[in-house]
Parts: sequence; C-alpha cells; structure tokens
Amino acid sequence: MAPLPLTPVDSRRRQIEEVASALFRERGYAGTGMREIARGLQLRGASLYAHIGSKEDVLFAIVERAADRFQDALAPYLRSAAPAEERLRGMIRAHVRVLTDDLEDAAVFLHEWRFLGPERRARILERRDNHELAFRNAIADGVEAGDFRLVDERLAARSLLSALNGIASWWRPDGPLSPDQIAEAYADLHLAGLLTEAGATTGSPRRTHP
Amino acid sequence: MAPLPLTPVDSRRRQIEEVASALFRERGYAGTGMREIARGLQLRGASLYAHIGSKEDVLFAIVERAADRFQDALAPYLRSAAPAEERLRGMIRAHVRVLTDDLEDAAVFLHEWRFLGPERRARILERRDNHELAFRNAIADGVEAGDFRLVDERLAARSLLSALNGIASWWRPDGPLSPDQIAEAYADLHLAGLLTEAGATTGSPRRTHP
Repeated sequence: MAPLPLTPVDSRRRQIEEVASALFRERGYAGTGMREIARGLQLRGASLYAHIGSKEDVLFAIVERAADRFQDALAPYLRSAAPAEERLRGMIRAHVRVLTDDLEDAAVFLHEWRFLGPERRARILERRDNHELAFRNAIADGVEAGDFRLVDERLAARSLLSALNGIASWWRPDGPLSPDQIAEAYADLHLAGLLTEAGATTGSPRRTHP
Repeated sequence: MAPLPLTPVDSRRRQIEEVASALFRERGYAGTGMREIARGLQLRGASLYAHIGSKEDVLFAIVERAADRFQDALAPYLRSAAPAEERLRGMIRAHVRVLTDDLEDAAVFLHEWRFLGPERRARILERRDNHELAFRNAIADGVEAGDFRLVDERLAARSLLSALNGIASWWRPDGPLSPDQIAEAYADLHLAGLLTEAGATTGSPRRTHP
C-alpha cells in the first residue's frame, strides 16, 4: 500500500524532525536547543512554535516513528508458523534494516528516549519491552521445539538485541558490508549459539590447517 | 599492590567525579552544568574551579579511569597461554565485573565519551579499539587453534562487546542475578556460537519432552 501523500503541514513537521534528529544524535537531546533546530531550518525560534509545541514533542515524534518502524518490521514474523531458526533470522534481518535505514533516528530511539517525560517514557519503554518479547518468544518457541538449546530466553533475547543495536554505532553506508550481510553474519553467530545439533541446518566450517 | 592513600586533593577530586558521573548518567553530559555539579557537592560554582579546570576535564577523568579499569581487568588474559575458550570466558567475566562495579562510570564511559573534544576523543577511541582488539585476538587465536569456527573475528568481537555493554543498561545490584552469573550465562551463549564440536568442552542440554 502506497503511503498517503504528505500535506504541507506534515512535510514541514517531517523536516523539523529530521533536523532535530541529526542534532539530537550529534549533541544529545539535552545539548540541543530549540534555537539550533530553528537555525537548521532557517527559521526564527518563534516560527518553529507554529509547527511544534515543545522540544520534547519533537523527540517523542521521532522516537514513536522509530518504534512504529521496528514494530511494522517484526509484524510478519509474529504470525509466522515457520521454524524458530527461520523466524529469528528474519527478525534479525528486519531489525538491522530498520536500524541502518535511518541511523540518526535509530540513535535517537536507542539513546535519547530516556529524556522523555515520565508518561511518554513509560509508553516507549512498554513498546521496547514488546519488541524484546517478540525475540524472547521466538527463542522460547525454538527451545520448546527442540531446535534451540535450553537457554534463559530473557538473557538470550537481551544479548541478541544489545548486539544488534550496537551495529547502529559503527555501521556506515559507505563501509564494506551491506545491512543484509551484517544481519546474516550476526544471525549466524547468534543462531550457532542457540541451535542444538538436531536443529542445525547449516554446516559450521572448521578451519583447516595447512 | 595496594593503592596509594588518597591525598585530600585527590579525594576532593574523586568526590567531584562521583557527583558528576551520576549527573552525566542521569541528564547527559550536555544537560549537566557546572552549577549543578557544585550544588551536588554543596559548593559554590566558583569554588569548584579551584579543583578542576572545566566540565570536560571531569568527563575526561571519569572516562580515563573507566578505561584504566577495563585495561587492568583484561591484562592477565593478554599474557595467558590458556586455551581460547578459557581466556575468552575470563575476559567476559572481567569486563562484566568492571561494568557492574560502577554502573554510573560505565554508562558515562559508554555513552558520554563522544562529547570530549577531538584530541581526547581520539585518545579514548584508541583505548576502546585496543580493548576490542584484545577480544578479537582471543577469538582469532581460538579459530587458529581449531577450537572456534571460522568466523569474522571483528564482527564476532563487536557483537560480543555490544551484548556485554548492554548489561550496564538493565542490570541492577538488587536483581536476581550476580555479575558473575550473568557473565557465565553470556559466556555460555557466545561461546556456544563460536566453539566447534571438537572445541566444545561443555555439554549443551537439549530440552527433553515429557
């Protein structure tokens, strides 16, 4: 389904969010003033307030949009009846794609959300928990099916998500590896740590010595 | 070797760093003013400058001290002739202990170092790179010895360190798991992803169905 065309108001908001996202990532939310956001848009501070209520509103809009993207990306795998290995691999690929699609939004989502006020922070925390839960459930299903070793699925999901989120801090679009290549490499590493021999579908090459 | 006793000047500095570290973690470096640091010490802003030159000096002192701790903790494993699995497990335990020993300093080291000026940032980046290199080398040695699968040791080290560093964002001293228990669980997960069958020394229990 094609997205609806943006109205001028929406598109102005989007510009504000883009400029703010870049500034929040570079200087931190607390180190960015409304004046700098306005300057990045070649607006005066007062004109900015015609479009947005507060700096926190912009942060919330960026973080919510990122949370929407992560949620949408995982949706197909929540209803999937595929084996846990295949599902988890797809979820890893989906998560890495969202992270690398917009590194600025990803960094703001990962690090600046904690500067939201209590209610909004609680709402984002709940969405982050749900995201983690989807990974936990996929791992638990794999353990249940005997494809994965008996692991603490909470720790395994956290370990995996922390590893994946770290990608946003070092991956560069002009680097040697595409997002899908990195996702496959991470999936191989983490799935090898989960799969039982019975569940393993891919061979693990062992170094041959000359 | 027992540490030298702190002089009154050192101990005042240490107090300043502790108050600053807590504030940097909570509000971010950019969101913390010298005035707030002074207030946390029940000093006036001007008196603070008798002890430290600038807010960035305090940040640098905190981050360098954390980098020292990580470096000291890994030192025994750099000279170790133990098998890669044992070395890597020890390094994971050492890293997790430093992280959890002082969560505030760890968070500042992980997230606020990028607000340092260019020269100091470059110096910390080099120390972070050396830390990562130690993990990469341990993984490479394991691959070379045939204990570990043929993996991209750079990605494997990054994946492991990102996963470990994530612990600092959710672990709480009053939670159910001790730092060593978490370190063992993470070591099990990540080593299972690296070990060849020939290299594996521990059994991986498979879920038995009733």
